[in-house]
Amino acid sequence: MFVIGERINGMFKVVKAAIQENDKTPIQALARDQVEAGARALDVNVGPAAADAVSAMTWLVDVIQEVTDVPLAIDSPKLEVLEASLERCKNKAIINSTTGTEEQLDKITSIAVKYGASLIGLTIDEKGIPRDADGRSEIALRILTTAMEKGLAVEDLYVDPVILPCNVAQVQSGHVLETIRQLKLLADPAPKTNLGLSNVSQGTKRRALINRVYLVMAIAAGLEGAIMDPLDNDLMDAAITADVLMNKNIYCDSFLEAYRK
Amino acid sequence: MFVIGERINGMFKVVKAAIQENDKTPIQALARDQVEAGARALDVNVGPAAADAVSAMTWLVDVIQEVTDVPLAIDSPKLEVLEASLERCKNKAIINSTTGTEEQLDKITSIAVKYGASLIGLTIDEKGIPRDADGRSEIALRILTTAMEKGLAVEDLYVDPVILPCNVAQVQSGHVLETIRQLKLLADPAPKTNLGLSNVSQGTKRRALINRVYLVMAIAAGLEGAIMDPLDNDLMDAAITADVLMNKNIYCDSFLEAYRK
Repeated sequence: MFVIGERINGMFKVVKAAIQENDKTPIQALARDQVEAGARALDVNVGPAAADAVSAMTWLVDVIQEVTDVPLAIDSPKLEVLEASLERCKNKAIINSTTGTEEQLDKITSIAVKYGASLIGLTIDEKGIPRDADGRSEIALRILTTAMEKGLAVEDLYVDPVILPCNVAQVQSGHVLETIRQLKLLADPAPKTNLGLSNVSQGTKRRALINRVYLVMAIAAGLEGAIMDPLDNDLMDAAITADVLMNKNIYCDSFLEAYRK
Repeated sequence: MFVIGERINGMFKVVKAAIQENDKTPIQALARDQVEAGARALDVNVGPAAADAVSAMTWLVDVIQEVTDVPLAIDSPKLEVLEASLERCKNKAIINSTTGTEEQLDKITSIAVKYGASLIGLTIDEKGIPRDADGRSEIALRILTTAMEKGLAVEDLYVDPVILPCNVAQVQSGHVLETIRQLKLLADPAPKTNLGLSNVSQGTKRRALINRVYLVMAIAAGLEGAIMDPLDNDLMDAAITADVLMNKNIYCDSFLEAYRK
């Protein structure tokens, strides 16, 4: 699993306060802790409250890069935030994200190509989130076609089929698994798939359990990446074990420790 | 999930001792506890050490039926044990199991029909356990055909695609998931699928974790039943949550408690 750590997000109080006070200590601790726990990349989101999103995001990028070299997923829909941050990224970055809406898809794919970044494309368009797997695959095809036209390598594209909270859209969990399976057949090589995992449990009383179980189901369907909490030890254990059972990592008695190293 | 509780098995010391001493108290406690924890049926296995398998099994059947009405899965390859036990079962029973080997399949399917029992058919034949999904589905088709010829309703047939320990046969975990998906296409209605779950983790250092993760993967592939430990609370939580995410049980905030009631 390509685990993108979700914890550096201005929606969390400690991150919000750190941004407001220009205090890099808690940000760097979160960066180090997530990478040590097994994150292969770090999502960076200034949150809705940041007064100046450009300066907040570039500051975050700078302070995180002082302590780790893993790719950063610049989590913003704003073009000026994306460009200013990608300028600062020393290593290959990830854009999180574009939708399949034509104008945004065109512009953000061009930015990904310009900066040599990977791109997460959400299966959402002008009409919103499709109600089934076919609708999601249709938008994924549009995202893939745009990537190919603009010269973004398929290897740099992640499609996110957009999971919804199971308490209000229970039938969607299955549709998203079906979409992950369908996306394997979209092209050869197929675009990789990614999920913003925590959304599946939004508003439920058993968030950690639901996240964990759904992640395993998605890995069984072929999921390659997720934005998730690597500091949730049980969640990481489940992801690592699922990869072993899918024969993606070789079994050894200490497979949990082996992955984290 | 149709959970068949695995705990009444002579391989466990407490059960072995109870059989030897004709002490029904621990057997009845295990029966009650498993049903309360969410088992919908109980596997009954006298273990390899029982001196007289017929009298041990019929005694177990009698004492279990004093405390619960759930179906009993008579777990023995011996025809005389199966017949003597099925005679004593007050409610619909399950035969666990037959292989796809012609002679055994014929005889045990006939016994299932004679006693109106359900039947678990393992995808094993003269050549052993197939090395891929196609080989398993081929044996499953033979089992299904025999069931239809002899008049066993498809609803009474469970096919078990035989999971192997992931530490020695890592690639088989994926083949078994693929088999579960293939079996859905074998007939309409399709035979249900069942797994002897604990085998996947045999000999590993993280048995509970591996069992739990693999069960979730199998449910995502369409698994309907498993012989497993309902007293493993985390395992039951995972199974119940997976069923909710597959939209088989309706979500409510207290979905874990709701299932167990």
